[in-house]
Amino acid sequence: MASYCSITVDLGERSYPIIIGSGLLAGGYDLAASVDGPDCLVVSNETVAPLYLDTLKSSLHGREVAEFNLQDGEAWKTLDASAAIVDKLVDMGANRDTTVIALGGGVVGDIAGFAAACYMRGVALIQVPTTLLAQVDSSVGGKTGVNHARGKNLIGAFHQPRLVLIDTDTLATLPDRELKAGLAEVIKYGAIADAEFLAWLEQNIDTLIARDADTLAHAIQRSCEIKAEIVADDERETGRRAVLNFGHTFGHAIEHCVGYGEWLHGEAVAAGMIMAAKLSSIDDGSVERLRELIARAGLPVAPPMVGAKQLRAAMGMDKKVQRKQLRFVLLNKLGDAHVTAEFDPAALEDVLGAAG
Amino acid sequence: MASYCSITVDLGERSYPIIIGSGLLAGGYDLAASVDGPDCLVVSNETVAPLYLDTLKSSLHGREVAEFNLQDGEAWKTLDASAAIVDKLVDMGANRDTTVIALGGGVVGDIAGFAAACYMRGVALIQVPTTLLAQVDSSVGGKTGVNHARGKNLIGAFHQPRLVLIDTDTLATLPDRELKAGLAEVIKYGAIADAEFLAWLEQNIDTLIARDADTLAHAIQRSCEIKAEIVADDERETGRRAVLNFGHTFGHAIEHCVGYGEWLHGEAVAAGMIMAAKLSSIDDGSVERLRELIARAGLPVAPPMVGAKQLRAAMGMDKKVQRKQLRFVLLNKLGDAHVTAEFDPAALEDVLGAAG
Repeated sequence: MASYCSITVDLGERSYPIIIGSGLLAGGYDLAASVDGPDCLVVSNETVAPLYLDTLKSSLHGREVAEFNLQDGEAWKTLDASAAIVDKLVDMGANRDTTVIALGGGVVGDIAGFAAACYMRGVALIQVPTTLLAQVDSSVGGKTGVNHARGKNLIGAFHQPRLVLIDTDTLATLPDRELKAGLAEVIKYGAIADAEFLAWLEQNIDTLIARDADTLAHAIQRSCEIKAEIVADDERETGRRAVLNFGHTFGHAIEHCVGYGEWLHGEAVAAGMIMAAKLSSIDDGSVERLRELIARAGLPVAPPMVGAKQLRAAMGMDKKVQRKQLRFVLLNKLGDAHVTAEFDPAALEDVLGAAG
Repeated sequence: MASYCSITVDLGERSYPIIIGSGLLAGGYDLAASVDGPDCLVVSNETVAPLYLDTLKSSLHGREVAEFNLQDGEAWKTLDASAAIVDKLVDMGANRDTTVIALGGGVVGDIAGFAAACYMRGVALIQVPTTLLAQVDSSVGGKTGVNHARGKNLIGAFHQPRLVLIDTDTLATLPDRELKAGLAEVIKYGAIADAEFLAWLEQNIDTLIARDADTLAHAIQRSCEIKAEIVADDERETGRRAVLNFGHTFGHAIEHCVGYGEWLHGEAVAAGMIMAAKLSSIDDGSVERLRELIARAGLPVAPPMVGAKQLRAAMGMDKKVQRKQLRFVLLNKLGDAHVTAEFDPAALEDVLGAAG
């Protein structure tokens, strides 16, 4: 067994570990021990499966392993895709003790997770995220779901995994653009919860982009620690967990307006974080620090030219809307955030105005 | 306010009341007080809506009320039906604080409940069951879901309602066949959990079929008490809750083989309970007592002539199968049941042989 770091998401009887390390798929972690029943279904996609499926299967000794590949990309994150996984589970005669293993990025994890949540009202799920974004964000915390033609993640379920297995070796094949998109969520954790980590990111952003293994591992670990702590505190997002959506109200609207998959989720969140920072009552210097870090990460610092009206309409469908009132995650200062329905409408118009 | 009886399903912060009484929709209960947000969607069907929708709406003063009608019948309990409700929620600009109200029988409650479970990862649900079967069983306990072409309730979620509102006046318009189908589940509670209640049913079965209001109200109340107690003990059916499926392994197989909707769920469960009783190690006199009560309730006491082989194949897809092993709910005696994978294979062949 290789060495690894383990972080527990503390949710009582639904607690589970996040395992982070190198060489974990290639024998470094006993994955089969986390598969309770006799069989499992590995859901991946046409891009990731050729790279890691065989290695993963070698960790599943003694288990019947079925495979299902999705099409690659956010555009395919639909109810039909989850339904196709359910069909596959029926085909293989899967029962309540079958385990679904999601091998891939956030899209694979969200679709496969939702299928696992719905099949027989919930079967076990293991997340094996292979993109930085999925490793630091979407694979942890139990949010699963698919997009609706008129809104992102409008159909879904909370369904916690039994295990999140993060093999940092999988980042070797990740395109630069996706690595940077993942860094957007890493920066988010610093901005909302840990000023010290944000300062560390400012010092190490170039090393991260150069894919230094130890530096990436530390960034993943600290991100997962922050997410695990917030999720344990508010699993169903009745309160504090919503701070994890910093930049996401704007980000989701951007994704919706340009069409899913045109901008990567992390890119939209990057621009969205700067918009949210501008809407916050923080000093210009802090906004500028965040803007500079995001720029150095190679991420967009302004929304696309889609028009303020379109963005505003798309935000009306955001899940954070309560009693028909828009809500935002705003910064108190770098490293500290809150959710609020109170903001300066004129400032919002300024921020949206930048979208042309 | 009319008088009513209230039973609490005790699930910590997800606890909720089951309210049972007469005249509750027509002003006897303040339904609007249970709708937290500004708006709600009443999901019903083409049969029930003309009878009770206007009355229900009169209880929703001060709330925006949207309506959606499903087609009537188990054959329409599909993923498409739940997706159509989600479309309607998107159309009306529903948010996380929107409430879904299911007005109808078990099919309406299951489909609407699943849509409420999935929309934005879960919005509030109120069950207003209008059939005896839904009042004593499907509206209580949080099981929601739809059928797959190859198995009943294969797609679904646990999603507890905020309130179950049972107006016994709605039974006035229930066809005799459906009333009797509901009595199958009432008899089930006696058989698995309460010998005294079973004896009471033997004394009152004719009065129940004659629709005496007070006798029906007592049967509903005792059934809900038993279900609430079992659900509170094992919400996710990891153990004891499975006894509620007495007769259902056979019953689901029957429904599947004859085609959903040909036999009512309660009718299939009635025949299934006798099959399960025969498979149990109980004396012939007890089996005969159960058979006689079910016959007096006007329910089938034997499976349809679909063939043992077909029934066995359909049972292979049952959710209670673990590690590819069939499991049954068997009686220790009348009023006491357990779940087991241990049974006499020859006895199973005998029981299935009765199916032709």
